[in-house]
Amino acid sequence: MALIVQKYGGTSVANPDRIRNLARRVARYKAMGHQIVVVVSAMSGETNRLISLAKEIMPEPDPRELDVMVSTGEQVTIGMTALALMELGIKARSYTGAQVRILTDDAFTKARILSIDEHNIKKDLDSGHVVVVAGFQGVDANGNITTLGRGGSDTTGVALAAALKADECQIYTDVDGVYTTDPRVVPEARRLDKITFEEMLELASQGSKVLQIRSVEFAGKYKVKLRVLSSFEDEGDGTLITFEEEENMEQPVISGIAFNRDEAKITVLGVPDTPGIAYQILGPIADANVDVDMIIQNTGADGTTDFTFTVHKNEMNKALSILRDKVQGNIKAREIVGDDKVAKVAIVGVGMKSHVGVASKMFRTLAEEGINIQMISTSEIKIAVVIDEKYMELAVRVLHKAFELEAA
Amino acid sequence: MALIVQKYGGTSVANPDRIRNLARRVARYKAMGHQIVVVVSAMSGETNRLISLAKEIMPEPDPRELDVMVSTGEQVTIGMTALALMELGIKARSYTGAQVRILTDDAFTKARILSIDEHNIKKDLDSGHVVVVAGFQGVDANGNITTLGRGGSDTTGVALAAALKADECQIYTDVDGVYTTDPRVVPEARRLDKITFEEMLELASQGSKVLQIRSVEFAGKYKVKLRVLSSFEDEGDGTLITFEEEENMEQPVISGIAFNRDEAKITVLGVPDTPGIAYQILGPIADANVDVDMIIQNTGADGTTDFTFTVHKNEMNKALSILRDKVQGNIKAREIVGDDKVAKVAIVGVGMKSHVGVASKMFRTLAEEGINIQMISTSEIKIAVVIDEKYMELAVRVLHKAFELEAA
Repeated sequence: MALIVQKYGGTSVANPDRIRNLARRVARYKAMGHQIVVVVSAMSGETNRLISLAKEIMPEPDPRELDVMVSTGEQVTIGMTALALMELGIKARSYTGAQVRILTDDAFTKARILSIDEHNIKKDLDSGHVVVVAGFQGVDANGNITTLGRGGSDTTGVALAAALKADECQIYTDVDGVYTTDPRVVPEARRLDKITFEEMLELASQGSKVLQIRSVEFAGKYKVKLRVLSSFEDEGDGTLITFEEEENMEQPVISGIAFNRDEAKITVLGVPDTPGIAYQILGPIADANVDVDMIIQNTGADGTTDFTFTVHKNEMNKALSILRDKVQGNIKAREIVGDDKVAKVAIVGVGMKSHVGVASKMFRTLAEEGINIQMISTSEIKIAVVIDEKYMELAVRVLHKAFELEAA
Repeated sequence: MALIVQKYGGTSVANPDRIRNLARRVARYKAMGHQIVVVVSAMSGETNRLISLAKEIMPEPDPRELDVMVSTGEQVTIGMTALALMELGIKARSYTGAQVRILTDDAFTKARILSIDEHNIKKDLDSGHVVVVAGFQGVDANGNITTLGRGGSDTTGVALAAALKADECQIYTDVDGVYTTDPRVVPEARRLDKITFEEMLELASQGSKVLQIRSVEFAGKYKVKLRVLSSFEDEGDGTLITFEEEENMEQPVISGIAFNRDEAKITVLGVPDTPGIAYQILGPIADANVDVDMIIQNTGADGTTDFTFTVHKNEMNKALSILRDKVQGNIKAREIVGDDKVAKVAIVGVGMKSHVGVASKMFRTLAEEGINIQMISTSEIKIAVVIDEKYMELAVRVLHKAFELEAA
């Protein structure tokens, strides 16, 4: 008998039929003797509907009140899910985030989980109930409803699995596992049976949409065994995210290729090459809560330097305004330019640690297709490049082939 | 400066425009220096939508989970209402029933309020906030979400007014006050400036839909000054429900006429006229939680009696089955018949206490139109009759005229 947390996303609970389907799967696991906690998102489209309703009233809605409204999406789904289980004769009980007491900080719309009271859930599991918990939401110390931000339901699932010391956290989604890359771009992409936690973290942070990066971080921190599965197929074991590299197995050099169009590039041209310049540029950006991803700085021969970094596309104009209003004059930069027609492509694999020549193979492969590399960022198990966005799919396809990812 | 609780029903919050309208009214009251607590229902149609969703999953939904789902209706509205107030520059904060802590019993879908913690609301009012509370919902001692049943938002408003010792509880609805009778049936019907609490209670219990009877009872118990107003007009003082009959004023003999088609008549024919027979008939009905309204018993000359009572139309068949299966044999009744083609018409007025001849005038008026009276029930300030439902509108019109209710 195992304790399993199963998390179902918006498309898995999109309508009563799918919820009934979910209930039948839970029933099969229950029949095997497992204890099950189900975490559900809002029905797909519902969160956006509620946000639109709020914006119709107040274009920049107060975040506390927005969370009051948006959290109702999951609250409806937990009720429906519990009813679907009962209809199959299974004892079930739903909990909102506040009812579990998933305690968070008070950063409305992007709260972080501080602690989970597992007492009531354990009691219900021990009395034979399936427990259904609303994902994406919690409550702060003053009893205010909070939400964890987009994708937060994954985080709820992993955090519950950690608090309950669950044997496994299963993330049900509309794909049947983690692939070497997105099959919509590379039809030969192959599903991975296993992937290491570090690789998953890099893939998620580089743009793979299968798992939210925060939930992967959480799983890493609390050593939660994660498995990605399809909610539309009953066969298959999906992809297991493991914590140990298997010594005896021949590791592939790279495991997967992630990519995204989410970032924009900002370049500050002709900056004096003096100490502290990076802080003078990025300090005001950070103060405005704009996240920066890649950063590079090239020193020229004339004592000036070009400073380039990437931000989310939605925040490019905000970042440009800040730089032009508050920074350009101080640091005497010649020009500040933004480019949102870029894409990031990253190859990821623990195998590259012990293989030389991975980077040069990547760069050669791109060069052979005439794809210019604008920025490079590396970690021990990842090489990411920024390129013109029109070459993104081509780059992913040629890299997938060059590193033989289609082979079993 | 007064403390005013304003309750807005589903049609008053049906869409963002109406919510903005509501916010402007609240702003005007705030500008006069009043402290305001707003109680809102779900947007009209929303509660039914959620119930349908639940029934699609489970035809007889578990009441605990149904309440989890249905309570989201008001939760969305409180967020929208708070946002609309903020958009006007007014400080506002929303509360669900659980957040206020409106403590109820655990009778899901028809819970009763046990107590209200007014601490946080008072603090917010004192710091200049408008407080927006979800109607219709509460929380039981174990933290489960409960709802108060249909019309429960009125009860929330009155209960909050009582707990906060508010100066007035204003019920905003789609009519501009309490009328002598429904203007759709009698175009000459007149809006009453004032009505006594006892009259309002009788009118509500006899079928007037303006106020829920539970909220009127609550107002009576806690001496809450109630006022019924239109949410679609900015002029007018509506109808005040007062607690004292005004001694100096000439009271009209009757104040209003209520009517409904909600009841069905059940007659048990040829019952032996022995002690305990009423209990033998009605005991099993009460055990099945079927509410009985009017009861009459006529003794015939042959030592048997006919026993007649009314129940809600929806429960007639249930009551008939119980009587035929469990009662008829024991009490040797000759026959049991049901009739759901009946209507109840009631005249109500504190003035009738001091006027003789009110009943005879009512009966004569109906007789002159050839309307047969099937049952009669009276209280100190009310006379109700059951008639063939096809005469209902006619009866209301001729009574309205006979008692000169159209006169100012």
